[in-house]
Amino acid sequence: MSQIAGRITPRVVSREVRLKRRPVGVPTPDDFELAEVTLEGPAEGEILVRNLFMSVDPYMRGRMIDRKSYVPPFELDEAMTGGCVGVVEASRHERFNVGDHVLGMHGWREYWLSDGADVQTVDPHLAPVQAYLGVLGMPGLTAYVGLLEIGAIEQGDTVFVSGAAGAVGSVACQIAKIRGCRVIGSAGSAAKTDWLLQTAGVDAAIDYKLENLRAALAGACPDGIDVYFDNVGGDHLEAALDLMNTRGRIVACGSISTYNATEPPPGPRNLFRVVTNRLTMRGFIVTDHWDRFGAFVRDASGWIGSGQLRWEETIHEGIESAPEAFMGLFAGENLGKMLVRL
Amino acid sequence: MSQIAGRITPRVVSREVRLKRRPVGVPTPDDFELAEVTLEGPAEGEILVRNLFMSVDPYMRGRMIDRKSYVPPFELDEAMTGGCVGVVEASRHERFNVGDHVLGMHGWREYWLSDGADVQTVDPHLAPVQAYLGVLGMPGLTAYVGLLEIGAIEQGDTVFVSGAAGAVGSVACQIAKIRGCRVIGSAGSAAKTDWLLQTAGVDAAIDYKLENLRAALAGACPDGIDVYFDNVGGDHLEAALDLMNTRGRIVACGSISTYNATEPPPGPRNLFRVVTNRLTMRGFIVTDHWDRFGAFVRDASGWIGSGQLRWEETIHEGIESAPEAFMGLFAGENLGKMLVRL
Repeated sequence: MSQIAGRITPRVVSREVRLKRRPVGVPTPDDFELAEVTLEGPAEGEILVRNLFMSVDPYMRGRMIDRKSYVPPFELDEAMTGGCVGVVEASRHERFNVGDHVLGMHGWREYWLSDGADVQTVDPHLAPVQAYLGVLGMPGLTAYVGLLEIGAIEQGDTVFVSGAAGAVGSVACQIAKIRGCRVIGSAGSAAKTDWLLQTAGVDAAIDYKLENLRAALAGACPDGIDVYFDNVGGDHLEAALDLMNTRGRIVACGSISTYNATEPPPGPRNLFRVVTNRLTMRGFIVTDHWDRFGAFVRDASGWIGSGQLRWEETIHEGIESAPEAFMGLFAGENLGKMLVRL
Repeated sequence: MSQIAGRITPRVVSREVRLKRRPVGVPTPDDFELAEVTLEGPAEGEILVRNLFMSVDPYMRGRMIDRKSYVPPFELDEAMTGGCVGVVEASRHERFNVGDHVLGMHGWREYWLSDGADVQTVDPHLAPVQAYLGVLGMPGLTAYVGLLEIGAIEQGDTVFVSGAAGAVGSVACQIAKIRGCRVIGSAGSAAKTDWLLQTAGVDAAIDYKLENLRAALAGACPDGIDVYFDNVGGDHLEAALDLMNTRGRIVACGSISTYNATEPPPGPRNLFRVVTNRLTMRGFIVTDHWDRFGAFVRDASGWIGSGQLRWEETIHEGIESAPEAFMGLFAGENLGKMLVRL
């Protein structure tokens, strides 16, 4: 019954990155494998997509472990999944036309077939398509929901964001500024703290690799912290806990400092401040909040248009560089969103 | 202008317990000192109260440390403060009559003078007066607010309460049962777990000194934990985190396992479950919630009347036994509320 048919596509050869073995500690190139598959053209009701960009994200480290969690683990010897944007090369699906730009979760591969479930078209005129993997995508929504709903920031709050120059943190810093907060960001290089101060417009930036985090944070927050947006965990969480104001909120978003630990690291020694200072620490997973996506895109598009929301990308080239891009996340090699151009 | 005058009271000799030095680790008798003072009869606008019972509470351990917190530290060489109930022996205050039973925060002494601020009369017919230090007092309100407001328990929830046979925990277990929850309590002796099962009516009780806490808790919670009411911290918090259901709530009330630590102990190794399971961990201090006291007393009195809310007391005799009673809290010597009868 479909009225749409794509051009007849010859089979395509697609390279993909598979998880070869489960990393122990910091992932290494040997944990990944580049493989080649041949895809037939789409069957009735399917599309064939050529990926333009794929995303690597810190949360993927958790999926490399074989355990029950909020997303199932990656399977060994299969291409890993994750956010990607591509262009429809062939369509036998009534909702998609050849040439449409689409966002999917098919991840680490050059081409993919889909029945269209969980695939959405994106507007390449609003922003470069890869922005839908970053500032206008899941990381942006994470910052938006985390600050506005989980952290419930209010004008005048002091907001501390760790991992502040990353895909989520960089958006969080700017949304907090837009909402009239005093913002302190931490990051791991002078280039990042410069960007935070000069482009994101934060009030103070801490280079945690150079400075004593606790002392620098205390110095930057003379009136304490009302909301801590935690992307890092570990020492950052402990340092923030020491400075949280009464009834402060901790947005528990990520813990990149601990993802490669071979033994689960101990939690903060000062966790009891949650009681004494009546803190709320709340975790969230962005995929529970897709209902906010429309509001987020409207707000974020407006802020982009007015120049209040800026972003950076760190781009690796070619599917074969995807493991390196992923590993680079944990070395802090990215300013803004880490991407692989395919 | 006062129309009330108490009988002329001769001066009274009052013994009191002072903090002699700040305990390091587990408090010892040498940290306390018994002293004697002479009080004159009340001045105009004052009352003289003879204490009948004084409370010892775990939170007082924090007040023995010289640091800024939600309550100021105890002063050295001064009588310690804390909950107490007594009888008005002499009144030159229009709000109080001789013979009134009153609740105050004057604590570790036999007699006290007050201008009536923060002193309230209690009804000895509703319950024995010492109940206002326990089931009908601050510990009861702590359980009530913690479960109903901070933890937002709902019918059918699985609720785990640690320190379940203590002053707060024993009330928390019963309120959760009254509200239709499945309740698991942990405590440190067979006498306590027996009481929990037979009198408090919990669904399962764990003797954490005898059993492997993690295994026993997992066995008692086949469907996970929706609300954890934490009085203990440490291993209990870590064990509970492992079992928290998605969107579970942790009521951060106390951490008695860590109060005597000389070094702040590490937090739970699995704190990241706050993120993956979208948990909310929220701390509170009962004194922020006095506005709920009226509702609490109405509810609790009703439950006492209907036999749904029961309580135990562990009573030491005489002001000189107060340090021993206090130290006994950390050895788990109390079933229900630990009190000193004066």
